[in-house]
Amino acid sequence: MRTKFVLIETSHAGNVGGAARAMKVMGFDELVLVAPRWPNVLKREETIQRASGANDVLDQARIVDTLDEALEGVSHLCATAMTPRDFGPPTRAPRAHFEHLLGSASAPVSPEQRPEGVAFLFGSERFGMKNEDVYRSHVCLSIPTHPQFGSLNLAAAVQLVAYDWRQALGGFGAESEASSATDPREADATAVAGLLSHLEQALVAVDFLDPAAPKKLMPRLNQLFNRARLSPEEVHILRGVAKAMLSTADKAKR
Amino acid sequence: MRTKFVLIETSHAGNVGGAARAMKVMGFDELVLVAPRWPNVLKREETIQRASGANDVLDQARIVDTLDEALEGVSHLCATAMTPRDFGPPTRAPRAHFEHLLGSASAPVSPEQRPEGVAFLFGSERFGMKNEDVYRSHVCLSIPTHPQFGSLNLAAAVQLVAYDWRQALGGFGAESEASSATDPREADATAVAGLLSHLEQALVAVDFLDPAAPKKLMPRLNQLFNRARLSPEEVHILRGVAKAMLSTADKAKR
Repeated sequence: MRTKFVLIETSHAGNVGGAARAMKVMGFDELVLVAPRWPNVLKREETIQRASGANDVLDQARIVDTLDEALEGVSHLCATAMTPRDFGPPTRAPRAHFEHLLGSASAPVSPEQRPEGVAFLFGSERFGMKNEDVYRSHVCLSIPTHPQFGSLNLAAAVQLVAYDWRQALGGFGAESEASSATDPREADATAVAGLLSHLEQALVAVDFLDPAAPKKLMPRLNQLFNRARLSPEEVHILRGVAKAMLSTADKAKR
Repeated sequence: MRTKFVLIETSHAGNVGGAARAMKVMGFDELVLVAPRWPNVLKREETIQRASGANDVLDQARIVDTLDEALEGVSHLCATAMTPRDFGPPTRAPRAHFEHLLGSASAPVSPEQRPEGVAFLFGSERFGMKNEDVYRSHVCLSIPTHPQFGSLNLAAAVQLVAYDWRQALGGFGAESEASSATDPREADATAVAGLLSHLEQALVAVDFLDPAAPKKLMPRLNQLFNRARLSPEEVHILRGVAKAMLSTADKAKR
């Protein structure tokens, strides 16, 4: 879905760069600046530095004089503001609103009901959004922050909205879940029993376990191994340890 | 729940300030810096400027030399890294993992199953996390980013993790922070590190571990213990085993 990030009257060049980077890591590239404090902000050193490689977002970014000019192709406007306004649109947390807008797995929204395009509006660092810009929006997104410290950096706010929006759109596919390699098969109970019996001999041999007063040591180790859900390879390793203990104890007795 | 943000070998002062601010807007205040590039980083102008009022987080922040010193009171370590490591913990997206850890509305996790405290580890801006620090973690969090542009700013990564974690904890409003640090059912990471180092000596002494070719044995045992979520009493038992192994090996050499 077409997605624009619109920064209104932004005063810090670093934030423009940070916002470009924040958008790009979440796969968005349409940045519009409305009346930024520095007309040359896209070329400033601090901007480029903080963009950290998101140069294409800066290169494609548009600078316009009014919010109107920023909104072509967009049917759904999301203001962002900490404080709800009287007469304004409903205030919602981003996740809740995105679910409302796109539906969820259990209650999907049909494609026709989805908006044509979305714009996220961010006000100036010092003054936030003007009332008139909030009033024209469909919703006012309020990122849940600490009641006594809601001072979210502008680029950080862009980052959080971009993240939640990307996740709501379905994310980047099922990447990084290659955890099958780290998710070992589980050793069967026979293998664990063999290990415990081997370890028991070793623990007796090194004088840690007194066979006359075993004090639930082996059941406890058994529980520990069960919780860990040992792999066959780990059983093999631990039997190697038991063997080394036995052979050391053997030498100690000679 | 006790929550620490641990920045390891951070080089940019601005990121330390940005991280402090990002934590505080999400209601977290425990920041630990492990071997930062600038020893005076908490007092630098750029740090304070980017913290933008989160001065109490900076004032309370601790600077330590090693990761071990950062982890007291914490039983669950979350590495953050873009690329999964062999032999490392499972890689998960933050939201999925937090749901796994705390349960969801439909499938809650009981209070006893929750960890005692959590630490989020962030590597240096240039090199990310060291393998050894990833190996000791319980999970490797990978924030889903664009496959061709995963360059997430450090403070932005802190912001996203803090946000997801706060949301997983129930957001602002609900939640009572009454999870006392007393009587932990789960051993903290410092205790597990102490156990591993003791066991390592013992395994060398019984000629099971060749220090010249350690072959990932200790990271594997670390992962096994993490999965088992050792209790303090189990750490005590296993240290007793290590001690008995060392003393037997000592006799064998006489």
